[in-house]
Amino acid sequence: MRIDIVTCQPELLASPFAYSIVKRAQDKGLAELHVHDLRRYAINKHGQIDDYVFGGGAGMVLRVEPIAACFDELMAQRSYDAIVYLTPDGETLRQPLVNRLSLGENLLLLCGHYKGVDERIRQEYITHEISIGDYVLSGGELGAAVLVDAVVRLLPGVLGNEESALSDSFQDNLLAPPVYTRPAEWRGHSVPDILLSGNTPRVEEWRHEQALARTQQRRPDLLN
Amino acid sequence: MRIDIVTCQPELLASPFAYSIVKRAQDKGLAELHVHDLRRYAINKHGQIDDYVFGGGAGMVLRVEPIAACFDELMAQRSYDAIVYLTPDGETLRQPLVNRLSLGENLLLLCGHYKGVDERIRQEYITHEISIGDYVLSGGELGAAVLVDAVVRLLPGVLGNEESALSDSFQDNLLAPPVYTRPAEWRGHSVPDILLSGNTPRVEEWRHEQALARTQQRRPDLLN
Repeated sequence: MRIDIVTCQPELLASPFAYSIVKRAQDKGLAELHVHDLRRYAINKHGQIDDYVFGGGAGMVLRVEPIAACFDELMAQRSYDAIVYLTPDGETLRQPLVNRLSLGENLLLLCGHYKGVDERIRQEYITHEISIGDYVLSGGELGAAVLVDAVVRLLPGVLGNEESALSDSFQDNLLAPPVYTRPAEWRGHSVPDILLSGNTPRVEEWRHEQALARTQQRRPDLLN
Repeated sequence: MRIDIVTCQPELLASPFAYSIVKRAQDKGLAELHVHDLRRYAINKHGQIDDYVFGGGAGMVLRVEPIAACFDELMAQRSYDAIVYLTPDGETLRQPLVNRLSLGENLLLLCGHYKGVDERIRQEYITHEISIGDYVLSGGELGAAVLVDAVVRLLPGVLGNEESALSDSFQDNLLAPPVYTRPAEWRGHSVPDILLSGNTPRVEEWRHEQALARTQQRRPDLLN
């Protein structure tokens, strides 16, 4: 999979893409990431990419021309399965949407900044408006980093153990059960006996009960 | 505000904290960030911090001792308003929770990794279990970066213009209205006339209508 990310803060994305699963996916040739600096497409020598909001008020808005120039260049070279704008008023990102996006070949992500992008970019180019959650961030870069991590770890061959992704929270609408590791006894707190029993079917049953109970208690909405 | 972040991938957080609003907040002395490498508290010379999951199955679990050692050291020096574990089965992060956390003086964040942390750490230390959304990431680091950005931008004096944060999406349960900037005409697409009218009360009315309509269409749940 190839992912292009258009941003006015490319530096911010350096370390999330240079470590962890995303790095491993790139090393294995399973994912290709390209970060494009919007300032390279600025409208003048001063590097201008934003302007005051029409109608007055605080905050700056990303102008259409730099984004359009960058998008046109990229879209002339390949077709994209999704052109995503990361924005708090987009569709809330959930695992099924991540799963769908992970099936694409080319993704193009646009990071908002300041007060957002000129509405005409959204109308002309964007196929998916996505929010990573109901909170406000200073830009779309962390949203893009989150989306990339979530998508890339699903690509076949990226995770060391295929089973690992399938037993994660959300893949079956259940939260994950509690996990324990050595030591079995720590400051007077013991691991549940069942986990030390070696009785795999009963362990699996216990885990399912725990996952169900935890979901019922914390996230009953997931069970509907 | 002081924020301590405990992680086994400190490198991943380098650039999100070195740019943007978080950098500005640190430069202004309004936020102090400390990233702690869990491997400094490893249980042996090989840097071990994790172990196999009790009961069998894929994935590794972060052991209790390194986390406890790091937490005990930090908690001996100051008291924390919240000790947060970033985990997909936590409470979903939303703006009101961000607002509450931004009022604290000291925050301690623990990033999960692999299959998560030993449950006993959650029982013994954690005051808030927080998920940034219903999707699975390869670790809690991006969740911590998101939480830090969301919280830090609310600290008084961090944003250049105080008005800016209050008119964002979610602060009033409405999505933000569309925004436009120059040029007024672009590839045949014009900015709505009202925004060029100079009639501020009518512009504000239009924005409210647009925000309401967008929220009704995209996120009716926010209006309940």
